[in-house]
Amino acid sequence: MSLDLRIEPLELPLVHPFRTARGEETTTGTALFRLANNGVEALGESSPIARYGESIGSIIEWYARHPLRGNDPFAFEELLSGVPPAARCGLDLALHDLVGKKLGVPLFRLLGLDPTRTPVTSFTVGIADPQTTLQKVREAGNHPVLKIKLGLGSVNDQIETIEAVRFIYDGAIRIDANEGWSAESAVAILRELDRFDIEFCEQPIPAGSPQQLQYIRERASIPIVADEDAKDATDLPALMNCVDGINIKLVKCGGIRGALAMIHTARAMGLKIMLGCMVESAILATAAAHLSPLVDWTDLDGPFLTAHDPFSGVTYDGGHLILPDGPGLGVREATVVA
Amino acid sequence: MSLDLRIEPLELPLVHPFRTARGEETTTGTALFRLANNGVEALGESSPIARYGESIGSIIEWYARHPLRGNDPFAFEELLSGVPPAARCGLDLALHDLVGKKLGVPLFRLLGLDPTRTPVTSFTVGIADPQTTLQKVREAGNHPVLKIKLGLGSVNDQIETIEAVRFIYDGAIRIDANEGWSAESAVAILRELDRFDIEFCEQPIPAGSPQQLQYIRERASIPIVADEDAKDATDLPALMNCVDGINIKLVKCGGIRGALAMIHTARAMGLKIMLGCMVESAILATAAAHLSPLVDWTDLDGPFLTAHDPFSGVTYDGGHLILPDGPGLGVREATVVA
Repeated sequence: MSLDLRIEPLELPLVHPFRTARGEETTTGTALFRLANNGVEALGESSPIARYGESIGSIIEWYARHPLRGNDPFAFEELLSGVPPAARCGLDLALHDLVGKKLGVPLFRLLGLDPTRTPVTSFTVGIADPQTTLQKVREAGNHPVLKIKLGLGSVNDQIETIEAVRFIYDGAIRIDANEGWSAESAVAILRELDRFDIEFCEQPIPAGSPQQLQYIRERASIPIVADEDAKDATDLPALMNCVDGINIKLVKCGGIRGALAMIHTARAMGLKIMLGCMVESAILATAAAHLSPLVDWTDLDGPFLTAHDPFSGVTYDGGHLILPDGPGLGVREATVVA
Repeated sequence: MSLDLRIEPLELPLVHPFRTARGEETTTGTALFRLANNGVEALGESSPIARYGESIGSIIEWYARHPLRGNDPFAFEELLSGVPPAARCGLDLALHDLVGKKLGVPLFRLLGLDPTRTPVTSFTVGIADPQTTLQKVREAGNHPVLKIKLGLGSVNDQIETIEAVRFIYDGAIRIDANEGWSAESAVAILRELDRFDIEFCEQPIPAGSPQQLQYIRERASIPIVADEDAKDATDLPALMNCVDGINIKLVKCGGIRGALAMIHTARAMGLKIMLGCMVESAILATAAAHLSPLVDWTDLDGPFLTAHDPFSGVTYDGGHLILPDGPGLGVREATVVA
């Protein structure tokens, strides 16, 4: 009857080196959570973000120093309270998987959601020279929504990149500056990009200056979505009237429960909601996908970016998220053939 | 496999005529929801508030005109969206009861909460002359928290009532003006009452003027809790910096799901949370009690106020809420002996 938690690093090779305004990666790692209770095995995952001071090492160390408080998998509040967000995310996912499996119910059903109401997900194109960017856009084929990473290079280069993309691509385009602009350059770039029919722009400037976001929003018509400025629900009241929407990531806010708190708070404030991801396996992406009937936009392309994902769950049909119907998260692990 | 809903009026005689700043009642009625699916029977209830334009009649009429959209009791979002709050509340409770019974899990467990963390509830004393008020306070005996209704009569009478109560009662005192004061009289009364150690004051002035609440809050030190100004989660952003807390009632916000949205939003805003009730049977009071481990204060004394409640669920031990451990709401119906 005990609740046994094991956490191990999960290495995920990338299909393409991934470049953003913050650096380049060729492989990535996440923390894989395995939770067992009374013969039922559950999976969780976290992809800690160095920017917020957590790492795979810090997660493993947290649980080494803080054994689970109790053996009842239904005692979410007791087990999760006080745990740092990325460490909490892995356990939160594993508990939802475990409880769903014990009850024989998929997570979306436990949450009362309609699995046919999942939004289309965007496919992300990292920062590259214009030629590589265009090559990636062609590879994306008829995917209905692209998210183009900006925030590095000259103002003109960034505008030319989007102009070139729009020239060959008819679908919806979202852009993400990853805190890479100043307020003034954000206004200049967004005004120029307005003619290319951009759906929204994520986090144009460094987090921590809601007034500056408001300044941009009042001067450019492309909707502004906060990412780094919206870690968890308690960040949202300060964004009132400063942004049009927020990007929720399970690893920022501590998992399903933290995401529900953000969704409720954002809706109360009249904000649009995007559900994003890190480079991650199908565990995290599937968990987020279960919540997606509650949001407006999804950017859950993590599984497209990894070369050998040992897990499968959410699938994609022309960009549409298809939820698995197994109990809990509904994620399956590939059987290793010797 | 169909989802069969029946709604009928439930008459609840009152122990004492109940007087607030808005009127007096000797009996009350609620709407009883009976939901059946595949041999499982579930209970819900709503106690519509005329102030917000709903009645037992309007609830019954709503469902007569809008048959349930589907037969899957797990499809909360589909079944509840677009339904007016008090009508939604009864169905929301019945669905939670039904799903809990199907899964064999009490609601507090489905919500991941610790049943030992329920707060003490207050016992409400309606508006009366000072002698009757004191008699009621004596009847309340050693109940640890009282909520005294004010808002009618002269400023001096109201202050004298609280002075007299405090003279014979050592427990925590909350007051509720039910929109009965002006901002100026609220400041005057609250400053006078400060010496009687008042826990908080509910809704001092008519709803709709958050700036006036802020005006009061800046001039008096007794914490201010919004009730009529906080119907559902979308009301909360306008109360930022204007109040210290909110009073959630299931019938105002549409049930368990609406209450969770309010709880998440209020916590994100740093507000304290009270969970209140109407005059109601054990169905509504028990549903609210299941949520109570998430809040700071409860005022769930509805079942104390009715003379013949056909239902039993939450019980009280020295004011502490004891949750039933049956599946779903855990509410039982008295067997009628012929």
